[in-house]
Amino acid sequence: MKLTGIIAYPITPFSACGERIDFAVLASCLEQLIDAGSDAIAPLGSTGESAYLNQEEWEKVAAFTVDAVSKRVPVIVGISEITTSQAVKKAKYAESIGADAVMVIPVSYWKLTDQEIFDYYQEISNNISIPIMVYNNPATGGVDISPELLVKMFNEIDNVTMVKESTGDIQRMHKLFELSNGELPFFNGSNPLALEALCAGASGWCTAAPNLLDRQPKNLYENVAKGNLAAAQTIFYQQLPMLRFIVSGNIPRAIKAGLKLRGIDAGVPRKPLRGSQPEEIALLQSLMTKVS
Amino acid sequence: MKLTGIIAYPITPFSACGERIDFAVLASCLEQLIDAGSDAIAPLGSTGESAYLNQEEWEKVAAFTVDAVSKRVPVIVGISEITTSQAVKKAKYAESIGADAVMVIPVSYWKLTDQEIFDYYQEISNNISIPIMVYNNPATGGVDISPELLVKMFNEIDNVTMVKESTGDIQRMHKLFELSNGELPFFNGSNPLALEALCAGASGWCTAAPNLLDRQPKNLYENVAKGNLAAAQTIFYQQLPMLRFIVSGNIPRAIKAGLKLRGIDAGVPRKPLRGSQPEEIALLQSLMTKVS
Amino acid sequence: MKLTGIIAYPITPFSACGERIDFAVLASCLEQLIDAGSDAIAPLGSTGESAYLNQEEWEKVAAFTVDAVSKRVPVIVGISEITTSQAVKKAKYAESIGADAVMVIPVSYWKLTDQEIFDYYQEISNNISIPIMVYNNPATGGVDISPELLVKMFNEIDNVTMVKESTGDIQRMHKLFELSNGELPFFNGSNPLALEALCAGASGWCTAAPNLLDRQPKNLYENVAKGNLAAAQTIFYQQLPMLRFIVSGNIPRAIKAGLKLRGIDAGVPRKPLRGSQPEEIALLQSLMTKVS
Amino acid sequence: MKLTGIIAYPITPFSACGERIDFAVLASCLEQLIDAGSDAIAPLGSTGESAYLNQEEWEKVAAFTVDAVSKRVPVIVGISEITTSQAVKKAKYAESIGADAVMVIPVSYWKLTDQEIFDYYQEISNNISIPIMVYNNPATGGVDISPELLVKMFNEIDNVTMVKESTGDIQRMHKLFELSNGELPFFNGSNPLALEALCAGASGWCTAAPNLLDRQPKNLYENVAKGNLAAAQTIFYQQLPMLRFIVSGNIPRAIKAGLKLRGIDAGVPRKPLRGSQPEEIALLQSLMTKVS
Repeated sequence: MKLTGIIAYPITPFSACGERIDFAVLASCLEQLIDAGSDAIAPLGSTGESAYLNQEEWEKVAAFTVDAVSKRVPVIVGISEITTSQAVKKAKYAESIGADAVMVIPVSYWKLTDQEIFDYYQEISNNISIPIMVYNNPATGGVDISPELLVKMFNEIDNVTMVKESTGDIQRMHKLFELSNGELPFFNGSNPLALEALCAGASGWCTAAPNLLDRQPKNLYENVAKGNLAAAQTIFYQQLPMLRFIVSGNIPRAIKAGLKLRGIDAGVPRKPLRGSQPEEIALLQSLMTKVS
Repeated sequence: MKLTGIIAYPITPFSACGERIDFAVLASCLEQLIDAGSDAIAPLGSTGESAYLNQEEWEKVAAFTVDAVSKRVPVIVGISEITTSQAVKKAKYAESIGADAVMVIPVSYWKLTDQEIFDYYQEISNNISIPIMVYNNPATGGVDISPELLVKMFNEIDNVTMVKESTGDIQRMHKLFELSNGELPFFNGSNPLALEALCAGASGWCTAAPNLLDRQPKNLYENVAKGNLAAAQTIFYQQLPMLRFIVSGNIPRAIKAGLKLRGIDAGVPRKPLRGSQPEEIALLQSLMTKVS
Repeated sequence: MKLTGIIAYPITPFSACGERIDFAVLASCLEQLIDAGSDAIAPLGSTGESAYLNQEEWEKVAAFTVDAVSKRVPVIVGISEITTSQAVKKAKYAESIGADAVMVIPVSYWKLTDQEIFDYYQEISNNISIPIMVYNNPATGGVDISPELLVKMFNEIDNVTMVKESTGDIQRMHKLFELSNGELPFFNGSNPLALEALCAGASGWCTAAPNLLDRQPKNLYENVAKGNLAAAQTIFYQQLPMLRFIVSGNIPRAIKAGLKLRGIDAGVPRKPLRGSQPEEIALLQSLMTKVS
Repeated sequence: MKLTGIIAYPITPFSACGERIDFAVLASCLEQLIDAGSDAIAPLGSTGESAYLNQEEWEKVAAFTVDAVSKRVPVIVGISEITTSQAVKKAKYAESIGADAVMVIPVSYWKLTDQEIFDYYQEISNNISIPIMVYNNPATGGVDISPELLVKMFNEIDNVTMVKESTGDIQRMHKLFELSNGELPFFNGSNPLALEALCAGASGWCTAAPNLLDRQPKNLYENVAKGNLAAAQTIFYQQLPMLRFIVSGNIPRAIKAGLKLRGIDAGVPRKPLRGSQPEEIALLQSLMTKVS
């Protein structure tokens, strides 16, 4: 599995009352992401409110997505669990339903030591035989995984084969590149860093932006890949206001509001999260008009 | 319910394999905390690994503790849930089994706005009729509740009647005091701040330290309460190295290691958390010798 | 020289145009600080705009103050210089005119290593024979001196005999107390921390507040010293809004505005610093009415 | 004056005792920087220990450099002063000796408000008629100038025509680009960000690296300018370890140590700064072997 390009993140749509998952809407979101040229689909990420679903819901979304994507592109299932045993349980389930990989973020209550993080991934790896993308995002998970530890896990844990770096710190990517002699494939998970991360050697971009920007993220990726720097710069600055909006609050709120403006009712994020407020929606509307 | 003094936090003991809760050990821990002069018992807090238990385990620990304490002192049950609905479910359960209050920390994946935090507590309050202690600890829960919002919730949400402040920032306590004209009872949750928090007007101290220090925390509280500042200072500096050790890693790790040194096998924290390592245990041993 | 209590900081008054120092006003400010019960006077501190004066001005203010105070209380002259040679030059001058001590903050452009900080103080000490108060205030000087280094300099450098800690972090004071077994006299330089610092064992409080609050800071000090904790608490909360105002912008701005409201025209701070704006003055007026 | 490319920073060489400036060595450093393809020379910057020189020394270095460069490339003279009047004095001097521009960083003791920063630059501009490069580097100067304020000063203050951004935060550059519609020429001052800053649209790179890396920084600039992204990436990662070393302590220390290894004795930085220690020199030696 040699992944590059755009890894797209679907939201998890809820019915009006916020209780039921709306699989019909999920299906059409998945189609739209594939139409946008996504190179992989990653359900149950931060965007997919993975941490807000119960076990049964999580399993249903995972299975439905693998089914719906149906091998057209790889499916990378997101796992964000506080205990090792729960993370293992979900990883095994993901493999059992045919997911191509899992993307795992260690969620913390008590901060984890490097050894605790290492053991967490090691135990997951011991229980599956599909690739693991290590997802570093201290702003959500509360755990910060250093470049040194990321490279160590890539070198020493069998199924750890790629990294998603979401700190937004370009120096981390430099470190990943140097410490692994360019061997470790790292993906950018910070939307407003997309241009520079790709210029610095990222294998791709993990993003929910295609939900609202369709092919534009892919377009940026392709122009950098071809070395069209001037074009890439223009394309990037065009979508930057929207990328910044998407990450200004929580991502599912922004994406769900945007989908609604595009005629798709995916509900609002689950409580305590609230949906976008009127002034945010007005701003989003004006941004969407500009970039389309 | 007019609480002051020491609110003591029991650990949740696990059997060797880490899977089963050891209720016999829990029982003896609870007795020891009551013997140490605790003014209330707070199971299922950060110390109690609340966030690492499944629903069934959490319920059993809550019910067992209420039973064991048997109204000798109030029991304040800890809740740390990411979704509002789960937090409500646990709060209702706590009330149903006779808990005297709940202590609730909003755990985040996506950061919460002030309105989202407010609504979270409002909805919990709407569903119970026992007091809520709002627990602010951004280092674990990932959400930081400002003094302004804490006072607003105290003023506007029925069952919110007290606050546990664990940022370790004494200026927050000044703000709580000033903004509420001294009306809002706030408790210190940062062990190395105990002396100053009490001097600044805290109603009490929420702490796991009595597990290892027996009556010493209560002794500090009483000396400040009586205005014996010189004695309080001496007592504080005596226990400070131990307080600092307790919070240097995660609290359950330190307490469980200390209990073991005292002859009580409460296991180690649940994975991915690890137990104390040999050099930590050696340090703890020397600290325990000094303070006892 | 065994100092305790209130070390008071005069401003450096400027004439209308901001160019000339107004020594007549300085004289009356010094009298007022002595009348307020100050245990020492510290000209040319942060409050005295030390860093904004040229060498000649600095010397004149130092000499004038030593003269005016005339041994009624000790005079501690402030030095904030970027190069070692300039700091030495000023320290020698201070000694030559009869200053009782110098208070030295290492101002940085490039950050300093521990060894560089140590050598800086060592070289100053080698050139004088009066006591040095090490002044740690990273927010202004840009250098942060750890408690460990402060205690090491106290132990190893002859004239280093006391510390002014202005980070506002009470844990630093705990460290100073512990690492020196209570031997190192440390003073609190963070106004809103005054109550707790004194409760934690600070020898005194370095403050510009007596310029506006007269005997109130001394009153707080005395009540803590006598162990009247309840009274100290009341006194502290009474002056806290004013203390907070004083440090909300830069201190000379606030003090000069306050002096003006009291009928003393000390000008405004030197450019690029500006004087207080109307809304700040209005707030200050209302605070001064409340505390007096 | 339309500047792009590499703005090179000479050190200020001192004689053995650290007291005298060694102009012969300065002359040869300047020649080497011009030979390295520098598009402008900026004496008396952070690298040039501007803040550590007295007025007379500063003037001599400025005049000597303008003379020596002799219009082959523009000379941009660095000013880092705490008071407005001193900054104005130096700016006027720079103009009087034929400097092409001044680069001004507001050094703070008390933090500055936006209005204070604005007035500081306005007053300098009012007194000269050569361009001002606003230099933002909170890590040294202690003042952080927001992108919004930078663009406002570019729009409203006559001689403010360019910006040097040294926070290392690529998002600041995005903001400068967006807020000025790409009109404000900004230069990167953070060495390890060179590749990405240029990819994001920086006009050039302000750096001391040519002192040790000769044409390599220019080579990076040219490859990005031509859109040779793959080559630029290779070149960047080649010099990155050295760039990181240069900024790991203070820049003059690293450059002076490197010059010594190249056979040029420029002394060590002025006290309290120390020269490189043996282990740093050994590391530097090995890095220089690799990149040359």
